[in-house]
Amino acid sequence: MASTALTFSDRDAHRAWLISQAKLPAGFRVGTTRLEFIPREAPKPAKMTLTLIALDQPTPNFAAMFTKNALPGAPVIIGRRRLNEPTLGAIIVNNKVSNVCAPGGVETSEKICAELAKLLRLAPGQVLPSSTGVIGWGLPVDAIISALPHTTAALTGDSIMPAAEGIMTTDLYPKVRRASVGAGSIVGIAKGAGMIEPNMATMLVYVLTDLAVPRATLRAALTRAVDVSFNTISVDSDTSTSDTVALVSSGRAPCADPAAFEAALTQVCRDLAEDVVRNGEGVRHVMRVSVSAAATPAFARAVGKTIVNAPLFKCAVAGNDPNVGRLVQAIGKYIGASAPETDLSRLRLRLGGIEIFADGVFQLNPEKENALVAHLRGAELYASAPPEDGVFTAAVDYPPHERCVEIEVEIGNGAAAAIVIGGDLTHEYVSENADYRS
Amino acid sequence: MASTALTFSDRDAHRAWLISQAKLPAGFRVGTTRLEFIPREAPKPAKMTLTLIALDQPTPNFAAMFTKNALPGAPVIIGRRRLNEPTLGAIIVNNKVSNVCAPGGVETSEKICAELAKLLRLAPGQVLPSSTGVIGWGLPVDAIISALPHTTAALTGDSIMPAAEGIMTTDLYPKVRRASVGAGSIVGIAKGAGMIEPNMATMLVYVLTDLAVPRATLRAALTRAVDVSFNTISVDSDTSTSDTVALVSSGRAPCADPAAFEAALTQVCRDLAEDVVRNGEGVRHVMRVSVSAAATPAFARAVGKTIVNAPLFKCAVAGNDPNVGRLVQAIGKYIGASAPETDLSRLRLRLGGIEIFADGVFQLNPEKENALVAHLRGAELYASAPPEDGVFTAAVDYPPHERCVEIEVEIGNGAAAAIVIGGDLTHEYVSENADYRS
Repeated sequence: MASTALTFSDRDAHRAWLISQAKLPAGFRVGTTRLEFIPREAPKPAKMTLTLIALDQPTPNFAAMFTKNALPGAPVIIGRRRLNEPTLGAIIVNNKVSNVCAPGGVETSEKICAELAKLLRLAPGQVLPSSTGVIGWGLPVDAIISALPHTTAALTGDSIMPAAEGIMTTDLYPKVRRASVGAGSIVGIAKGAGMIEPNMATMLVYVLTDLAVPRATLRAALTRAVDVSFNTISVDSDTSTSDTVALVSSGRAPCADPAAFEAALTQVCRDLAEDVVRNGEGVRHVMRVSVSAAATPAFARAVGKTIVNAPLFKCAVAGNDPNVGRLVQAIGKYIGASAPETDLSRLRLRLGGIEIFADGVFQLNPEKENALVAHLRGAELYASAPPEDGVFTAAVDYPPHERCVEIEVEIGNGAAAAIVIGGDLTHEYVSENADYRS
Repeated sequence: MASTALTFSDRDAHRAWLISQAKLPAGFRVGTTRLEFIPREAPKPAKMTLTLIALDQPTPNFAAMFTKNALPGAPVIIGRRRLNEPTLGAIIVNNKVSNVCAPGGVETSEKICAELAKLLRLAPGQVLPSSTGVIGWGLPVDAIISALPHTTAALTGDSIMPAAEGIMTTDLYPKVRRASVGAGSIVGIAKGAGMIEPNMATMLVYVLTDLAVPRATLRAALTRAVDVSFNTISVDSDTSTSDTVALVSSGRAPCADPAAFEAALTQVCRDLAEDVVRNGEGVRHVMRVSVSAAATPAFARAVGKTIVNAPLFKCAVAGNDPNVGRLVQAIGKYIGASAPETDLSRLRLRLGGIEIFADGVFQLNPEKENALVAHLRGAELYASAPPEDGVFTAAVDYPPHERCVEIEVEIGNGAAAAIVIGGDLTHEYVSENADYRS
């Protein structure tokens, strides 16, 4: 899915590459501030970063898509309203507290927007708020308002890296992707690990462009790009209450070719989506499932999602164990429950390019088994090391390569296809989500 | 869900209780044999147990339900055919190899039935085969046929314990439940861990009764009993290719009260279903989710399933962490995806009887947090201990108690209800399914 499968000699090389991608498009500035506070719901102090993305001029051309979770965060409720505003001037993001179903959450978030608007000479409705972090806690509104002047004072127009790092929570590294289109560029950042709602994180994505694309075109392009990128990934099947993808155009560069813009936007979204999985909590293998010859695109995607969400297959991949019986189980589980009349007589499966199932039966032998193990090992981001205290942590922060476990599924009853990206299920995931108290 | 919440002073006390439940109903005998073989698909020898359940006289009164997985095992394909046979005389079960999508799998299984039928003076169609274990391997047909005479010679009519132990794979302890109805009894055994398809196991359940219940009544009662027992559990959302529940009546005792029979059957199935979760791979907490005030029973059950299958909430429970934000996330995920128009303004949640969500917002404070932690700790089956080699194993085999993490969800838009039983997500689960090669 990534435009190029990168490998990095070391962490510094990866970081240098990210910095090279991070130049802000014309018309934007970013700034961050750290603050400390004591949550009402917990006894010990917590730290938060405020990240501000500001436009030099408010723009009518912005788009945003939000979580489908039926119990969304206050910023999502406000964000949906903002889509009806004539222009957008700034985005204010906090981590640590997601402001979901907290008493007075919407009012708190609106108050922060209003205070920031005063500092930036905007109307409150021109500020889009985003929050990510613990679900259930309320925002420390006074501490945030006190920190806003420091945040606006920190605004600079050079690199998006401070924002890419400022929105991180349990992320191991900042995620930045860019594409150039004619005289302009598209730069996106992401935090979180996809559909998962980790200890104190959710997925947030901000894509900035200087290309002059009208609001309606922008929103239609974002909907299509998200459908083939963020909507095709899953780390652990959990859908956060705060997921947000925003796309903002400053209009500083002409956009002569809307189709080229949408293609570049789609690539940036796909790259970021794959990054989000690669940085998923505890992910040691990224799985790319290509489903083809299916009756419909929705069916193809559902089969792919079933595979990347099947806990036993995910565990097998974590262990570099080509337990392909679990792969067949996952496919049969979905089809048996959802479309039991499907003809599976032409089902074919490949793992790492090696045929493992055809003509209704497994195609296995000891030589293939060895090759399958080698493929899984080659896609491993790092080996798991048993820690002395039993709490597993990631052995790398910046991933050393972008290789995936490649799974191909030919259903054999149509011409539709889909690609789905997911991660394995590891001790590192369980440690991150069970061994620490939030 | 269990008729009584048992606690056991030690393993021996639990085992003695199981033995006390295990007396076979009149008209049945069981026998087992161990055998060793070298799989075609793997280089090292493997061990298998054959378990035979035989009726003194073939009976027309039997029922069976099978997995809905679209790629079922050969014994499931044969079992569906057997439902049309006039009578059933025996059930032959092997563990270690599930005979799913293996070349010639149906023919192999039929050959074993035919050889056993000769020894028991039955027709091949009077033998129901069951297999559980590795998906992808073929049955060692010659070794099994050689062992059949030993298995028939081992038949005894006293206790079902040999069968309860013979069908085990990764199970930690044998599962036996019984109920008495008038002059007769119902005795059931189970293996496996519910919906999960573990390393080499799947769910198999055999319920025997001497109560004379006609075939049509038996089948209707089993369908209803399974719907409120085995169809309401999930360890990890995976549906095996071999799941089988069979109910056989020898007809030796009169059944004066069909309603009492069905109530007793339902209780035996519910108890076994809860046992299967309690013995689920890596399960350290059993969760019981009671969903009420829902629009339909299907909606109530789906909300319950979403909760027990939400990986992050399962991890939080494993860590005795009352991270109720993850519980709300799970509910919102399902409703947002499936019924986004649902009015959630009257949603109420309780954990361990303590209200945590009402009036649209969380109801949390530090005192409640302490009480929630105490509830989770009280339901823990054993504490996880970090092993030196990083491979986590269960600290108990026989569970010391039957307490559950009690979760109550009032949707607030109807009068329907459902109970769903599930397990947590632990290092022990990942170790069992990732750290060993199958």
